[in-house]
Amino acid sequence: MFITFEGIEGSGKTSVLDRLCPALSDEGISFVRTREPGGSELGRALRAMLLDGRTSLTNEAELFLYLADRAQHARQVIAPALERGDLVISDRYIDSTLCYQGHGRGMDLDRLIDLNNFAVGGLWPDLTLIFDLDPEISLKRARRRNIEEGIEVTQGRYEAERLDFHRRIRRGYLALAEQYPQRCRTVDASRPFDDVYYHVTQILEGHGISLDE
Amino acid sequence: MFITFEGIEGSGKTSVLDRLCPALSDEGISFVRTREPGGSELGRALRAMLLDGRTSLTNEAELFLYLADRAQHARQVIAPALERGDLVISDRYIDSTLCYQGHGRGMDLDRLIDLNNFAVGGLWPDLTLIFDLDPEISLKRARRRNIEEGIEVTQGRYEAERLDFHRRIRRGYLALAEQYPQRCRTVDASRPFDDVYYHVTQILEGHGISLDE
Repeated sequence: MFITFEGIEGSGKTSVLDRLCPALSDEGISFVRTREPGGSELGRALRAMLLDGRTSLTNEAELFLYLADRAQHARQVIAPALERGDLVISDRYIDSTLCYQGHGRGMDLDRLIDLNNFAVGGLWPDLTLIFDLDPEISLKRARRRNIEEGIEVTQGRYEAERLDFHRRIRRGYLALAEQYPQRCRTVDASRPFDDVYYHVTQILEGHGISLDE
Repeated sequence: MFITFEGIEGSGKTSVLDRLCPALSDEGISFVRTREPGGSELGRALRAMLLDGRTSLTNEAELFLYLADRAQHARQVIAPALERGDLVISDRYIDSTLCYQGHGRGMDLDRLIDLNNFAVGGLWPDLTLIFDLDPEISLKRARRRNIEEGIEVTQGRYEAERLDFHRRIRRGYLALAEQYPQRCRTVDASRPFDDVYYHVTQILEGHGISLDE
């Protein structure tokens, strides 16, 4: 089973993963936690170029770097793990490109879907959790996290974008959730962390992954 | 005017450029000499990943890295130079991907043309010189050059490929020359260097670029 976590910067995906993964281990569930960009060896070199706002990138070059990262990640990391029978959980995947490059940068969505499908050879997630939150709140979180990690706000390519950019991305995620109701579940990430985590475990339980809490 | 130099490894493109560019300067012609991969700041970081055979790359990731490099190169380097009125000469461009990833790796040519067109926003060369040579000869040259530069043969992603791969690429270039007779000129690169260079200057002269020799 292949699960992706999606949402705007600072929506809490990573914090939930940090708590979820030890719980999966406790249950003896064999899983791979991975992320984009940077889920493969190649990807780790690309991640720095993609997220550092000081690298000048045209929209098209940015898109193709994400697709290179994703092609390598899907084919060298995710597909082999699924073939071994592992659960795979990725922090971001195709939907990030549909929302950031599509809704955010204004690139054509049909083209993005076709390109992604080609990049990953049709490997779409079975389940996608969309962490939904007002960008005014989430960006404060993301910027605080960056400051704690010693990253200047203006150095993050997306954190430095204006609020309107992040609002378009949020609307993009909500549109995806409507468009793919079989695959996508929206999580209200404005609620207290314990509630958000509990909601996530409930969704997983509905997909056959039970956690003792 | 935008000119590209194309051909298999070791076909002599670079040596001709090394002689041609000073001659253009002597004529007072304002030009930009560039190359792929690696014609932009981003591209220089990608070039190492692409050409070093020790980086593991799926075919799709390889393609998307080339497209990222090209999108950035076309939009940040080539287009601005053409707008200034400069002559631009690039050592490799779209046709390399059509031949290496298409004829060499077996990827669909129509998809490659569409992807490239999207990457560069329709910026195709006005003139393409295809340096044609038997791969048995050209690979010996490329390997000798690598040894002189201290690069192990097995470290070059393409130099390490089998002869059959390079034969497919050569046939791909010859097919392109037939398909686009308006844009492509084939240069017999098996002839002595002075003859090859003279042929190149004749082709340029036919396109309004006169060199005093």
